Amino acid sequence: MPKVLHVIGEGLDNGLELADVSVADPDKGEVRIKVSASALNQADILYINSMHYTELKLPSRIGSEASGVVEAVGAGVSDIKVGDRVSTVPFFSTAPERHGVHGEYAIVPAEFCAPWPEGLTEQEGCSVWMQYLTAYFSLKSLGELKAGDTALIIAGASSAGIGAIQIAKSLGVNVVATTRSANKNEFLKNVGADHVINTTDEASFHEQLQKMTGGKGVNFAFDPVAGSFLKAYTQGMARDGKIAVYGMLGGGTDIVVPILDVIRTRTSVHAYSMYNYVSDPDLRKEGIDYICKALEGGKIKPIVDRVFLLQDYKEAYAYMSKGSQCGKIILQP
Amino acid sequence: MPKVLHVIGEGLDNGLELADVSVADPDKGEVRIKVSASALNQADILYINSMHYTELKLPSRIGSEASGVVEAVGAGVSDIKVGDRVSTVPFFSTAPERHGVHGEYAIVPAEFCAPWPEGLTEQEGCSVWMQYLTAYFSLKSLGELKAGDTALIIAGASSAGIGAIQIAKSLGVNVVATTRSANKNEFLKNVGADHVINTTDEASFHEQLQKMTGGKGVNFAFDPVAGSFLKAYTQGMARDGKIAVYGMLGGGTDIVVPILDVIRTRTSVHAYSMYNYVSDPDLRKEGIDYICKALEGGKIKPIVDRVFLLQDYKEAYAYMSKGSQCGKIILQP
Repeated sequence: MPKVLHVIGEGLDNGLELADVSVADPDKGEVRIKVSASALNQADILYINSMHYTELKLPSRIGSEASGVVEAVGAGVSDIKVGDRVSTVPFFSTAPERHGVHGEYAIVPAEFCAPWPEGLTEQEGCSVWMQYLTAYFSLKSLGELKAGDTALIIAGASSAGIGAIQIAKSLGVNVVATTRSANKNEFLKNVGADHVINTTDEASFHEQLQKMTGGKGVNFAFDPVAGSFLKAYTQGMARDGKIAVYGMLGGGTDIVVPILDVIRTRTSVHAYSMYNYVSDPDLRKEGIDYICKALEGGKIKPIVDRVFLLQDYKEAYAYMSKGSQCGKIILQP
Repeated sequence: MPKVLHVIGEGLDNGLELADVSVADPDKGEVRIKVSASALNQADILYINSMHYTELKLPSRIGSEASGVVEAVGAGVSDIKVGDRVSTVPFFSTAPERHGVHGEYAIVPAEFCAPWPEGLTEQEGCSVWMQYLTAYFSLKSLGELKAGDTALIIAGASSAGIGAIQIAKSLGVNVVATTRSANKNEFLKNVGADHVINTTDEASFHEQLQKMTGGKGVNFAFDPVAGSFLKAYTQGMARDGKIAVYGMLGGGTDIVVPILDVIRTRTSVHAYSMYNYVSDPDLRKEGIDYICKALEGGKIKPIVDRVFLLQDYKEAYAYMSKGSQCGKIILQP
């Protein structure tokens, strides 16, 4: 029987189990894929910890990005056939307990199967949509950035950060990336960042932003840390800038917004989730098309940090939790 | 010698003094007015307490809304002449220590003297621009509200709240107003609110909003309370709604944004100050024109709560601090 990763309780420590299961059949609108590789995401950890805005259901499958080959199609699926190479677009707002992908096979909605882009390995093929769609919808649809603007990409070496740097550069946007580790500076420059700030020195953060932007300030901040961290950089925002919070690595469930700085800069604060955009079929198509073209043109390129065997899922999640990776963390069945 | 109110220290308790001063002459671009009446604002209290985003300077004059008659004009002032009846538009970002209006006379920038609208008493004449321009720029320029949308006006019986209810109705917008005192319900309905919510029961607040809007939610919330109060209503926001925080009556200097609710509703959070809009000459003219027409057409009408003599300024500010007023609080020289 195939092995799949199950969530059987809350929390990373005891919540996960690798189970032998019998193969399920796809329902209407679903397909079953043989998983070639799957990618870990911060959203998985939020989900296990009941911190994701999608409610934890037990027992549940987990994981939302996989590359694989279609083995079976359910009723009403016309545009995908057995044998197609696909890459799943993260969307586990509906039935997350059923549509998780970590394991040897997965059942996913057909409408969230995108092409496995040409020329990408199994590991790269499952490292596309979360990072690049997250970046695309935030920078383009929410941030409305145009060439010459400046984006602040916080935690630039995370997979979402790397995706955001690459998409920003593909849009002609200047990038200031941050990291807590000075030894990632070179890496971030290689990914495409124009400037790198080490945020261990929060005191001078906003002054550095002003200097790097020639006094113009940052038009769009992309922030997975939030908490009270906003205070460190809000003074570095441009007039009418936007802050998009897409995670809470700073702890807690509240964003703490310094009102005086936000009044002075007329900055608005948004909580961002890619799911709010990817659920729109037209926007989803727009994003997938943009990313496929950018991949073909060599403007963006997934970066894999490390590959774990499926059976070593505990080590993989522990490594993810440390937050020291530079790129995607992969589970290989 | 004329009497004027001076800020000589931080804090309401000991910070204010009524001083005899010699009359100053207007500098370039300024006019001197004999004050007919002036209105208290929450901004005055924020300023005395060093909580306003305009820095407290000592000693300083205070107050930003007066009706009066021009006594002298400075160099370069061509569109205002001695004898004109004017009403000052709040703008004390430049030289607040010089341009305060509480007292028997005031020196103010000519470009922030609007007409004293026809048919308004001395007390009504100083009760126009803060409330209506604050409301106009927030509902129209920031909120982009259109007829049929719903606005949530928190602390509806405050002067800014009353202004917002009236301007919202003049724009064809549905209004849900809130108050902590059930005995203000009738008053708020008379001002124009379609619905009134008593926010002593925070638990059901967002459910009431959903019911009152037929499940559509609130498009724009206008909130002088902020702090952690946002949590009580964010679930009642419409998709892509906006929350404009313009005060911190809830205490502290940080807005606390509940990230999961804001993700679900795609609500954005803005800190709003009228000064960021009124400083633009074109927007200022647009706002003043709209309000003059709405006053002429009887669509909006200033409400005066209580008039104090200038010498009773301590009682006036104490009354303002209690927050139980329904309308403007006036100082009469």
